Order: sequence, then structure tokens, then C-alpha cells
Amino acid sequence: MTAEAAPADRWLVEALRAIVGDRVTAADAVREQHGRDESYHAPRAPDLVVFATTTDEVSRVVQACAHHGAAVIPYGAGTSLEGHVAALQGGVSIDLTRMDRILAVNVEDMDVTVEAGVTRKRLNEDLRDAGLFFPVDPGADASIGGMAATRASGTNAVRYGTMRDAVLAMTVVLADGRVIRTSRRARKSAAGYDLTRLFVGSEGTLGVITEVTLRLHPIPEAVRAAVASYPDIKAAVDSVIATVQSGVPIARIELLDAAQMDAVNRYSGLDYPVEPTLFYEFHGSQMGVAEQVEVVEGIARDYGAAAFHWAARQEDRDRLWQARHNAYYAALALRPGSRGFTTDVCVPLSRLAECITETAADLEQSFLMAPMVGHVGDGNFHLVILVDPDNPGELAEAERLNERLVMRALAMDGTCTGEHGVGFGKMPFLATEHGEALSVMAALKRALDPDNIMNPGKIVLPS
Amino acid sequence: MTAEAAPADRWLVEALRAIVGDRVTAADAVREQHGRDESYHAPRAPDLVVFATTTDEVSRVVQACAHHGAAVIPYGAGTSLEGHVAALQGGVSIDLTRMDRILAVNVEDMDVTVEAGVTRKRLNEDLRDAGLFFPVDPGADASIGGMAATRASGTNAVRYGTMRDAVLAMTVVLADGRVIRTSRRARKSAAGYDLTRLFVGSEGTLGVITEVTLRLHPIPEAVRAAVASYPDIKAAVDSVIATVQSGVPIARIELLDAAQMDAVNRYSGLDYPVEPTLFYEFHGSQMGVAEQVEVVEGIARDYGAAAFHWAARQEDRDRLWQARHNAYYAALALRPGSRGFTTDVCVPLSRLAECITETAADLEQSFLMAPMVGHVGDGNFHLVILVDPDNPGELAEAERLNERLVMRALAMDGTCTGEHGVGFGKMPFLATEHGEALSVMAALKRALDPDNIMNPGKIVLPS
Repeated sequence: MTAEAAPADRWLVEALRAIVGDRVTAADAVREQHGRDESYHAPRAPDLVVFATTTDEVSRVVQACAHHGAAVIPYGAGTSLEGHVAALQGGVSIDLTRMDRILAVNVEDMDVTVEAGVTRKRLNEDLRDAGLFFPVDPGADASIGGMAATRASGTNAVRYGTMRDAVLAMTVVLADGRVIRTSRRARKSAAGYDLTRLFVGSEGTLGVITEVTLRLHPIPEAVRAAVASYPDIKAAVDSVIATVQSGVPIARIELLDAAQMDAVNRYSGLDYPVEPTLFYEFHGSQMGVAEQVEVVEGIARDYGAAAFHWAARQEDRDRLWQARHNAYYAALALRPGSRGFTTDVCVPLSRLAECITETAADLEQSFLMAPMVGHVGDGNFHLVILVDPDNPGELAEAERLNERLVMRALAMDGTCTGEHGVGFGKMPFLATEHGEALSVMAALKRALDPDNIMNPGKIVLPS
Repeated sequence: MTAEAAPADRWLVEALRAIVGDRVTAADAVREQHGRDESYHAPRAPDLVVFATTTDEVSRVVQACAHHGAAVIPYGAGTSLEGHVAALQGGVSIDLTRMDRILAVNVEDMDVTVEAGVTRKRLNEDLRDAGLFFPVDPGADASIGGMAATRASGTNAVRYGTMRDAVLAMTVVLADGRVIRTSRRARKSAAGYDLTRLFVGSEGTLGVITEVTLRLHPIPEAVRAAVASYPDIKAAVDSVIATVQSGVPIARIELLDAAQMDAVNRYSGLDYPVEPTLFYEFHGSQMGVAEQVEVVEGIARDYGAAAFHWAARQEDRDRLWQARHNAYYAALALRPGSRGFTTDVCVPLSRLAECITETAADLEQSFLMAPMVGHVGDGNFHLVILVDPDNPGELAEAERLNERLVMRALAMDGTCTGEHGVGFGKMPFLATEHGEALSVMAALKRALDPDNIMNPGKIVLPS
């Protein structure tokens, strides 16, 4: 703590020290790191950072914060994109990265219970020998707690679902420090309100997630990946619709527009055609994958795709998907020094081509560049609008483009955010998206966090 | 209304008449029908029954009830099993069966929006020509609104999930008459608290569901069904675990014990071996189904199954599944005049054989008979305890058996209800199942229904 700390802070620091010893800090570098995510949003440092190691510690820290009226902001890997970790009212960031134990792998039940700070890559490394994997893949090596808190999804949600589907149960510390388990480990239950789903996607505004039980899947016997380029966006999206309707259980189907393909080629030293392109991945038995491939290649041909570019070997597949996962950094590299203003709308599939095409027309009129990538099997796509974060004119233009895009998606019965969450960045759109239902969200917030200390200023204001 | 109606009721009747005209009644036969479900629970008739035809009418009816302090109990097909429709405090039953329009089928998006009173069989008949189907199948021809309200599932949840997974969005009338849409039609969203999942399974205690948007699936190209008998329960359950772990996307895998097979044979005029038996169904392409069958037959042999009994033709398949679906009535027919006291625990798969075996030992010590059927791919099974509902000694014994079973399931990290819901029948177990989390459910109830008029006395008491 600096000598200038207010007396209230001093009492809080002493209370926290009594709980976690020297694992509380006010060091500037640590505070600044904990107020910053990977987005263009301005960081806001918390007053204090606590490194928690147990659920009981988190509970006592939250009780101390409640007593002192300090805000509580959970922190995982810091990879979120809508300002979720920004300490808008100061307060205490609870860093959960030291809660990184894998508590129980139940092979017969195909589930695992982990502490919130375990990252998804580490989890999958640990699971490999059991023949199981955790499919949700947002690109970044996020923490499981953070992924649950933001209802993350990513490239293979089209087959395996999002964190909404993956989470079986959680341990949550409430705003008054009480600890609950949201559900049992049974695969399904009709025993009352679905607290698991209430806390998945609540972004720390209703409680702090400290443990998560996840559904797992058997590692598929066979995996193949492919790339195919299309004459235009509409042909690519129509090919996606036909693929999904065919009942083929495709594991991944990702769209990159020509600008993004150009960026990927430059960044990853590749030479794909600079055209709208679908990245595919197939999971199943050897025979099942062969059949899926045959069906999907036929559909692709029907919609004018150039020949499939195959990656059957693990290393080729890794390179292909690494190129896809690096799309964000590839986009940023088109304009050195820029940051990404990332959009995240999701619309019904039938409206997707129209939504993307109208957005492309907007972009042609703009002075900003914005490559596009999409989890198109779900109707979700991202523009990475390249902005100089110190240039207010550029930020204003990005905001204008985003607002037009969101309003277009909402008019198509879509959502302002398919997977990044609300944070404070998407709050301005929720009244339009939810209408009267937003008041229900506010009522839930008041019911579970009456003093508004849990990640305040995110998702919904209590009144 | 009878002449003895209290003055408050008279005002309420007049208010309701102003909204729905002659579609409000106090006729005894109608009231009694609306207070009764398919369970052993004693029926409790509402004071009035309203037949609603629009969401706006439901909204105005709820407002009138709120004004007069009358309870509101939504009514669909009346097929629930835990007293959900019993009017414990009198009040108004809102019958939604006349809200039976299919509002929009979106073939490209594979979704449909229906009014709450549409039944699942009617929906599937309407969808057939579009090549799509709605998979959730609880056996009874329940209404979609009722299935959403109770988080129903059934025989093919192991592949297609429960109503939790099937519902994309709903229109809900809140306790003060406000109407909300819980979500957009996009396949996924991270835009705030998951109101859809909060209302799925809320059993009318937070609002009245009037419209539901559902995810659909392509009708599979090929379907095959089979029956195989096993030497004992453990062998059958181990075969299920190996099947699920193999990654085979099995559509249905149902266990019937020897007593239930005896009942099915007698009721449906069949001659299956009277042994623990699995009913299977496979969905996929021709080639995919052939491969699934090969894998699963191999697993079955490994666990000592007798030869598969195949039903490839639609009519044989229908007969096979009709036998399974009639299991409840077949059980009742073992003891004419009895009613079924149905249990509904769900446990992690790894504990299922142990749970069933210990329960079978309990039953051997009991004077009551209780055939067993199970959605064993999910770890969910039902005893149908055959009771004379007028014999208090039998009811007490059934309650004792059920309580032992529930406590056993809870000790195995299971739930007291996998799919039937809480109603008032399962309320006594929720404190043990949820612990402190039950107080969170009570807080949600208070937040959304402060005057406790929405299906009061079900799931959780507000305080």
C-alpha cells in the first residue's frame, strides 16, 4: 500500500492480510495487469489484488469486502474482451490462477471437477491419457472459471455446445460469502431452478466461481481437417446451412473472409487463395469421418467451392488450426500498433449471409479495415476492426460500425454477443436486445447482490 | 359460480369475464380435472379455470389474479407426476390447451416457435414434411409449455438432451402481468443472465410460459432398434457405460428390469425373456447406423448379452417402443386398481448399478411391488411402486422406499428428480439436495414473485 491509502483501505488491507497473509498486494504493476483484458477497452486497475488458494479464502475475502463496501472482481487469465476485469469502482481483484488443481477425473462418468484457475490447455493435457477431452475452445488459453463466467464457446460449439452445455455444476461464493454448490454431478436434473445456468455467463456479477464440474467427451478415433475457398460469402454460408441441415455432425466449420485470409497468409506464411474460405474439422470413427467428408465435399462442390485442401496428419491439422486461431493477431499485424475492436453478433443461420453482406457494404464506406472470422455453424461472426486506440476519431468510427452491426443483428432476431459476453462494452445494447426482460435481470442482480459489490457496472445495473 | 362463492371471488370472476368472456368456469368437473395429474398425489381443484387463447389474455388474467391476490396455476396436458397442477391454495388454473398454434417453422434455422398448448406428437406430425423433428420424448403426449416448465426429457435425452437444451427462447408472462421474451432466436448468446434456462424447469412458479422456440433436428436417414437381455443389472449397466464411453451417438438406451419385462410381456402380448433388458435405438446414415450397431453389439456380447432382437422395419420399431412407452401402464396392470408411486432419481453413471442393486435389495424386503425402467444413458431410472392410494399403510411404505432411494442417490452425488420435476411431491428433499443453494432459489422466487401468487407451494417456499 502507498502511504496515501485512505483509512478504509487500510482496514480492508489488514482484514485481507489476516485471511491470505502476504498474498494481497497494492503494487502498481500487479494492479494494472489485473485491470486490463485483451480488448481495446481502457484498463481500470483495482485498488488491491488478492491471490486466493481455496474456496474458503475466497469466501472470507468476499465477506471482508462486503463488510468494507469494496467491490469484488474475479480474475482468471485476463483474456476477456469486453472489459470484464476492469475495476470500474476500484475494489479488490481476486486472482484465481493459483486455484489450479484438477480435483477429480471421473472416467466412467466422463466428467472432471477443477478449480477455477485451471486453463483449458492444461486440462486437456491432463485428460489425454484418459482418452477424454474438454471441447470448448475460445482460442485463448482461458481459465475454466473465466470461460464459465462468460459463457464462452468458440470453434467447435457447433458440435459440442458452449459452456452452457459443458458445465454440470459449480461451487460459487455469493455476495455475502456463503458458498453454494449449484447442482449435483448427475447428468440431468429437474430439481428446481437451474442455478448452474444462472451463474454460467453471470461474469462475476452474482458470485465468484471457484470450482467447476465439466462434461467431457471421448477423444475421437479419427480427425480430419480441410480448407475450401468459395466464390463469395453467400455461397460459403449457404454451404454451411446445407451442411448443418444434412445432419453431418461437423466438429468445426469456420468462415474467414478474403481480407482475413490475406492477413492469415501474411502472418503464418501460407498461400491460401485470398477468397471467402471455410475451415472444416471432422470427428468420428474412421468410417464415419470418411462418410462425413464425402457428404460435405459434395455440398461444397454444389456451392461452387474450389477443391478441398486436406490436412489429415496431426501436424498439418495443428498448422491449419493454428493459422485460424492466430487470425486475431494476424489481423492486428495488418496494421502494426493497432488494437482490435472486436464485434461478436450472432444471428439465425438463415440471416447470416445477409448480415455479413450488408456489413461488408458498410465497411467499404469506412476508412477502417476490419477482417472477418466466423463460427458460422452457430451464426456467430467477428469483425476485428483495426483501430489506433489513441485516436478518438477512429474509436468513434469503430463504435459507429459496431452499433450499426448490432442493430442489424437485433433486427434479424440475433444477439449483440454470441460468446464474448457483456462486460461493460456491450451494456448499451441490452435494453434494445432484451426489452422488458432486462428488468428481470436487474431484479436477479438485486436479489443476489443487494449491495452491488460483485463486479459492479457489468452486464446490468441493479436499478 | 355457485351461489356460495365468496364476494372476492365474485369480483375476480367478473374481472376474468371482462377479459375472456365465457371462457372462465367454476364447473366442478372442469375444476376437478384441472387439479389432477397422472400421479398418486391427491388432486386439489382450483376455484376457477380460464381457457386462454393469447399471451395478452394470459397477461391480463395474471394481472387480475395479482390484483385479487389469487393464485395462478398454468395447466397444459395434465400429465405431470409431482402434483404440479394441484391448486394448493385454490386460485385460477390457466388452461393453455387452446393456445395450440404452430407460429413459425424455420427450416434453414432448424427451429420452430409454438404456442404453449401444442403437444409434442402434434408438433412432430406437422414437422415431418419439412424433414425435421423435435426429439424430446417423455412418453406422455405432453404440451410443449408443460415440458418446458418441468424441464422434461425422456428416452432419447442421452443423444438429444433435455428441454434445457431444446428450448431456444420463450415468451413468459411474469407475476405482475408483464410479458418478456427470454432470449433471441440466435443459436447461442452471451448477452446477460440465461433467463431461458431460469424459466425452463420453473414449473409455473416464476411466470406462465405462453410461447416456446425449440431447436429441431433433421429426421435421420436410417433408424434401427434392438432389444437385448442381460444376465443381471450390473452387466446391463456396465454395457451402457462402455457404450457411452465408446463415443457411439446412441439415440436411446433404456433399461427394464425382470419385473418390468414380465409386465410388458403380459400387457403387450410379447414374449421377451424375463431378464434385465436394454432397449436400443440408433440414428444416423445407413452406413453410420450399421457401424454403431456393430460396435454396440460387440460391447453387448462382452457383457454377456443374449443375441440382439432386431426391429428394422418402422412397424416393428413402433411396436417395440410402444411396449417401452406402455411400461407404466403395463406395471399398473400387474395390480388392477393400483396407482403408480413413481420415483425419479438420477445418479452419475458410475454409481448406477450400485444404486439399482441396493434398491432391489430394499424391494425384496418390502411387501410392495415396483417394476423398474431407466433412461440409463443419463443415469436416470424410475420405480413404479404399485400402491392402493386409499391404503395409508401402502402409501407410507412407498414413501419409506422412495425416501431411502432418494437419500441413496443424494449420497452418490445424484438428484431426487432427473426429469419429473419437484411439484410439491419432491419438496421435502430439496434442502438435503441443495443445502445453502436452496436459499438462493427462495431469493429468486421472492425477486420475481414477491406476493407468492405463481403456483404457490411448489418447488420452494419464498422464505
